[in-house]
Amino acid sequence: MNNNQLVVKLILDRWFAVIKSCDSLLDAVSDEQLQKEIATGKNRGIYLLGHLIAVHDDLLRLLGLGEKMYPELFEPFLKSPDKAVADIPSAETLRGYWKNQNEVLKEKLNSIQPEEWFTKHTAVSEEDFAKEPQRNKLNIIITRTNHLSYHLGQLILLK
Amino acid sequence: MNNNQLVVKLILDRWFAVIKSCDSLLDAVSDEQLQKEIATGKNRGIYLLGHLIAVHDDLLRLLGLGEKMYPELFEPFLKSPDKAVADIPSAETLRGYWKNQNEVLKEKLNSIQPEEWFTKHTAVSEEDFAKEPQRNKLNIIITRTNHLSYHLGQLILLK
Repeated sequence: MNNNQLVVKLILDRWFAVIKSCDSLLDAVSDEQLQKEIATGKNRGIYLLGHLIAVHDDLLRLLGLGEKMYPELFEPFLKSPDKAVADIPSAETLRGYWKNQNEVLKEKLNSIQPEEWFTKHTAVSEEDFAKEPQRNKLNIIITRTNHLSYHLGQLILLK
Repeated sequence: MNNNQLVVKLILDRWFAVIKSCDSLLDAVSDEQLQKEIATGKNRGIYLLGHLIAVHDDLLRLLGLGEKMYPELFEPFLKSPDKAVADIPSAETLRGYWKNQNEVLKEKLNSIQPEEWFTKHTAVSEEDFAKEPQRNKLNIIITRTNHLSYHLGQLILLK
């Protein structure tokens, strides 16, 4: 394994490990618990779950892997704060999206070749990428894994 | 910049960015707020701050950069859960440790050469490292950055 292959493995392993921790947490909390706020006056669990799915949905586009699977989640879970949109999908529906999304992402992320991870993501121009080579696909996973860890630290409070 | 230099930069940039977010949060909360629980019945802010300093203190040892600066934090903030040890340092003291530690870590982390990040950390044997090359110094930073993001997601609830 060369260093490129190794770092891609490290970074993807971390992504999948945090996803797995979220899976375990979701298995441990009921739909009723998901309706609760993580702390008084803060976001509800269900909002954070929808938010994570919406953010991860955008990974497909940023990595050039295809279109969003659940574009309808943008409005209630990314554009709007919690409780601003009354009509949101049920916990059961979001659990299904989460599971399905992670199966699709796993297959697609694993299909990217090590060298390709060092190429630009789709939200940066060729010109800007030439000046800022750190804006590559790998960095998208690094930042999104930390975003996921941040919210996992909150979701765990539902237990 | 070759790919090794680039990924080291990506991973360290993320570490320093999350540290900076923690700095901003600590500036925004008072010592009194740090004494509060992040959610009812959960860890207090001050415990999480001590916990992060204790975990980061171990980075020095794991990366072969020297001894722990605050070994006395192991007992109250790593070995013990919150509220199990009555006599802990004040918020003011911990804020000073945090600031000092990050100055030392910044200098030491930036002194490690790109190639050296791919060498083994001190808690793995040469034999195991030959079988599991992912147990390198870089991976320590990846996992600790996610650990930090996880607790930052909790500390932010104090605001």
